[in-house]
Amino acid sequence: MERHFDEELKLLKQKLLVTADTAQEMIGLAVKSLVDRKEEPAKQVFTLEEKVNRLEIEIENEVLRLIARHQPAAGDLRLLTATLKINNDLERVADQTCNISETALYLLKEPPMKVIADIAHMASLAQKMIRDSIEAFVRHDSALAQKVCADDDQVDKSRDKMFSELLAAMIKDPSLITRGVELILVGRNIERTADHATNIGEEVIFIEQGKNIKHHIQEEDREA
Amino acid sequence: MERHFDEELKLLKQKLLVTADTAQEMIGLAVKSLVDRKEEPAKQVFTLEEKVNRLEIEIENEVLRLIARHQPAAGDLRLLTATLKINNDLERVADQTCNISETALYLLKEPPMKVIADIAHMASLAQKMIRDSIEAFVRHDSALAQKVCADDDQVDKSRDKMFSELLAAMIKDPSLITRGVELILVGRNIERTADHATNIGEEVIFIEQGKNIKHHIQEEDREA
Repeated sequence: MERHFDEELKLLKQKLLVTADTAQEMIGLAVKSLVDRKEEPAKQVFTLEEKVNRLEIEIENEVLRLIARHQPAAGDLRLLTATLKINNDLERVADQTCNISETALYLLKEPPMKVIADIAHMASLAQKMIRDSIEAFVRHDSALAQKVCADDDQVDKSRDKMFSELLAAMIKDPSLITRGVELILVGRNIERTADHATNIGEEVIFIEQGKNIKHHIQEEDREA
Repeated sequence: MERHFDEELKLLKQKLLVTADTAQEMIGLAVKSLVDRKEEPAKQVFTLEEKVNRLEIEIENEVLRLIARHQPAAGDLRLLTATLKINNDLERVADQTCNISETALYLLKEPPMKVIADIAHMASLAQKMIRDSIEAFVRHDSALAQKVCADDDQVDKSRDKMFSELLAAMIKDPSLITRGVELILVGRNIERTADHATNIGEEVIFIEQGKNIKHHIQEEDREA
């Protein structure tokens, strides 16, 4: 039975990886729609959101079923409830990408703006943070999780830069105000996706530290 | 032992109520700082955030302890994992109020702006949604949870109104741009707190509906 539980846990993690892959793909598509001024990627985001919503419910039910059926010990239980939280974070990343896609579709009807290039950079940082945070979770890699939390500063810096550039552009040319505000909100959306990756990273650190404190000696034995 | 579990569950719910009360109080204080142009309420928000962070960890540990010790049946398990999610939502409401407080402190150094009154209205809607969503959870009241989800439309309407008023003011007087953008972001922060209340409402509906179809799910599980 122990082995069976491990296999089910592995399948669950794979499902979480699929959700994470989809969520970070959605960030890319939403921003592509904005940068390339095309409808198609934004529409793909809305389709993928349904997939993420389905996966979220599947993962949640699976976690509850595993807890109820196997009544896991403290460490595995912590892992399963962390899965619930991470699952939730990923679903909210998907939500944010829908907001970006809606803005992209709206901005398609307006003349293009220059500052959009920075958004692409910020988005690629956020995508990497999502990938790294899930990898940190799956591989129990708290060093990588620490890196994710540190990377968040870069996203914040990128957002601040974009923010002040947009403000300056708007002050110089008030006809840019509406579009400028929309782009500031997109910047905020991307920042939120990075925040969710940071939440996941902190969760990983919390689990691994908890493990280290609780089972310090056993862990060392196992690693030796 | 069954009775003991029920009592512990009751204490847990009380702790969640304290978190919710604190979170909604923080919304009020953050917006008070903005509207009354006073430092003190914003500083109280930062102090209360530490309390919410402490409560979040306590509740999380308590849920894990209850699951590990009592190995509850499906219904209670669902309730406990929902507690984890709601706990997380409340902590993020607190985060949003810190963002608002930071903006309030920044805006204190700038001349006052008129549109702030609408923010107070929006905030009081969000506060009510938080209170109602937790009451719906504690009382298993899915009708009240439905109401919370419906109320979110009002917050969105209020945000749209504020948003367009601020844009119009900024276009008319570009010296308002920086402050206007800050207030739009505050509007977005309040909207997010209402979104968290909606998440809680949806969770309650999901639990209460899940209860009704639980037999069905178990049958599917068995077949799988």
